[in-house]
Amino acid sequence: MSDSSTNIDLVTFLSDFGRNGGGYVAACEAVIASIAPGVRVLHLSHEVGVGDVGWGSRELARVAPLCPRAVHLAVVDPGVGTERRPLVLVTGRGDRLVGPDNGLLVPGAEALGGLMEAWLLEPDRVRKRAGLPETGVSHTFHGRDIFAPAAALLALGVPASAIGRPFDITALERPRKTVFEATPHSLTAEVIEIDRFGNVGLSARFDDCVFPTTSVRVELVGEDLPVWNARVVDTFGRLLSGELGVYRDSWGQVALALNGASAAQLLSLSIGRIIRIELEETV
Amino acid sequence: MSDSSTNIDLVTFLSDFGRNGGGYVAACEAVIASIAPGVRVLHLSHEVGVGDVGWGSRELARVAPLCPRAVHLAVVDPGVGTERRPLVLVTGRGDRLVGPDNGLLVPGAEALGGLMEAWLLEPDRVRKRAGLPETGVSHTFHGRDIFAPAAALLALGVPASAIGRPFDITALERPRKTVFEATPHSLTAEVIEIDRFGNVGLSARFDDCVFPTTSVRVELVGEDLPVWNARVVDTFGRLLSGELGVYRDSWGQVALALNGASAAQLLSLSIGRIIRIELEETV
Amino acid sequence: MSDSSTNIDLVTFLSDFGRNGGGYVAACEAVIASIAPGVRVLHLSHEVGVGDVGWGSRELARVAPLCPRAVHLAVVDPGVGTERRPLVLVTGRGDRLVGPDNGLLVPGAEALGGLMEAWLLEPDRVRKRAGLPETGVSHTFHGRDIFAPAAALLALGVPASAIGRPFDITALERPRKTVFEATPHSLTAEVIEIDRFGNVGLSARFDDCVFPTTSVRVELVGEDLPVWNARVVDTFGRLLSGELGVYRDSWGQVALALNGASAAQLLSLSIGRIIRIELEETV
Repeated sequence: MSDSSTNIDLVTFLSDFGRNGGGYVAACEAVIASIAPGVRVLHLSHEVGVGDVGWGSRELARVAPLCPRAVHLAVVDPGVGTERRPLVLVTGRGDRLVGPDNGLLVPGAEALGGLMEAWLLEPDRVRKRAGLPETGVSHTFHGRDIFAPAAALLALGVPASAIGRPFDITALERPRKTVFEATPHSLTAEVIEIDRFGNVGLSARFDDCVFPTTSVRVELVGEDLPVWNARVVDTFGRLLSGELGVYRDSWGQVALALNGASAAQLLSLSIGRIIRIELEETV
Repeated sequence: MSDSSTNIDLVTFLSDFGRNGGGYVAACEAVIASIAPGVRVLHLSHEVGVGDVGWGSRELARVAPLCPRAVHLAVVDPGVGTERRPLVLVTGRGDRLVGPDNGLLVPGAEALGGLMEAWLLEPDRVRKRAGLPETGVSHTFHGRDIFAPAAALLALGVPASAIGRPFDITALERPRKTVFEATPHSLTAEVIEIDRFGNVGLSARFDDCVFPTTSVRVELVGEDLPVWNARVVDTFGRLLSGELGVYRDSWGQVALALNGASAAQLLSLSIGRIIRIELEETV
Repeated sequence: MSDSSTNIDLVTFLSDFGRNGGGYVAACEAVIASIAPGVRVLHLSHEVGVGDVGWGSRELARVAPLCPRAVHLAVVDPGVGTERRPLVLVTGRGDRLVGPDNGLLVPGAEALGGLMEAWLLEPDRVRKRAGLPETGVSHTFHGRDIFAPAAALLALGVPASAIGRPFDITALERPRKTVFEATPHSLTAEVIEIDRFGNVGLSARFDDCVFPTTSVRVELVGEDLPVWNARVVDTFGRLLSGELGVYRDSWGQVALALNGASAAQLLSLSIGRIIRIELEETV
């Protein structure tokens, strides 16, 4: 197994810690600065939905490929302190991903030239190598105590083999599949994202769908709510005031938007809701 | 036209993207890190009001002059994907500003030693020079696809002429003027800012107003609401509990505050509301 | 008094400024970048409760020891513009802490190898040394006008004696003591922290308490509210759905949690509320 390493100047960091209390984000960044002072930290997001591994995995897989070769530290970890495994993944591009084995890291690795190797982190070896007391691992904050030190060491060029042992790639946890069903007449998908503008991202690649007309209908599955007429457009800037639009968002997903207002609010949507888009022209 | 450039170590970044979803901020920073790995990114704000070009332009013009010479990347861009132009401005200090031609950049350039040159970005040349596929421009995320790459190239010392063509400064869009009217007896201005402390910034320079007494009255224009007595003070720390104060804020604007509580909440204010301050002593 | 200094590559920054308006955080970071361009800024938090000096002091004392030697800039400053003193503290580890004399800095200094020296900042000397106009000090934003310039100078190796005069350590303001009372039968403490997960940190070190059984009762002091049964566990991942847990959090404090839900919401808690935990087994 090839595990040769060289210095990596960049650590990215994604979590569901939030920025409003607890000091969790700063604690991890401080640990990295102590172990690897010259390494830059690029914060991807700390506002991933609490414990929402799917959200975290999608945001990581989306942004990581835009970075240069990096160590990607990702901690959305509802199982901290239980039996879930701590991981390092190595990608075809030479990136490292560090975090819990709950599906969070795999899509990111696949988007970075492919998942080539997996290593099970050994906390004692991580902490010893980082010069930390071996007894200092908390039950509830492995970000600070295991993952951030491991990320810093990997950035310094320490090989994964020095802080972990090989793990079978096929035995890794995978994230839950999202809802997606496309027929010639309709598209059923899940709300996977709502941004600050109220734009609603769905679990469907635009290029996997056929929109034969620009006029469609949008409804919430399982709800006795009104059906919305919508127009397929290339950007929300083309929509009239109050008109609902369906478009290919900047990540290639099918998305819903209004022009200058919140589509999420108009349709009372939240993450995880199921949407059906009827593709036939309303006759 | 002088367009000589040297490396600039700092890119600042302002937007209305928010930090809570979409990965927009991180995507732009990742693009910059890929193209110009040694350049530091200083985040000005990503919580500018959604699509509020005036807010963004004021925050940029306020903070940019405190920075060393920099490339200022600013994206508040409700017209993305439509005909609005992508710009680079060059200032008297040698800074570069990158963003949409909707008024966002002009006040910042004027505060940085003056607006000296304008260039119209040519997306194909930007992307080619940055080593990006020329076909990859989305309709809705020019921050990632055009502006961030352009900012990174400018930081590397690439001249604006290599990625754009000259544009007439007098043809640039300007931001909407805010309400401001001062008479010997009253001041009428617009709420342009509410900070975390509930302090309320108005669209009036303190030095453009005359406060002949320390006792004034504050009212909302067009509202049948109570009039508030207020006192002109040098800092909110001088106010009694519950007493409304008028003061010169740290940016030189007229502002309203309470001591240890929110003036915005007391007066039910939001951005854009019009305030009148009666300057005469209540007799 | 020993005041020898060398360059320090890292400035940390904590405040209650928030990120949503005012440009306060960015203004301070811009000032630092102007004076000390090579110094890295690590943001600890800017979401400390408004004017909550105790919160700020605890978050600083918690995270600062995880950093390498640094200048710690901390601004939670409800008394800005009044008589409160501007300070530099020097620690046993060689760190510097910069901020107002209101108790904010002292616990941090004590956690960094001990509080060794205190210096009273002289604003005129700070600004002159930083190349800033001496008349430019606002009444309401000493973060930008005094503290950030001082932090940048200290990072450059300027000795505290060059910008301030010695101050008696025993005369420093101290933060308010939090509620803590432990008897063999009960523990009374204050809510000092609520994180994004709804976990509730109390003003009690876990190791200062004796939990003779794993079954305890939790109640709010002075409220006619139901008493909650809770279980002492090592991590929230061990709790059943809906079961309240008491545990040693990752900072060594006694804390309350649910598994996958918010304990703060369940108990309607906010910062400052007093909690009693009855330690005896419910018979």
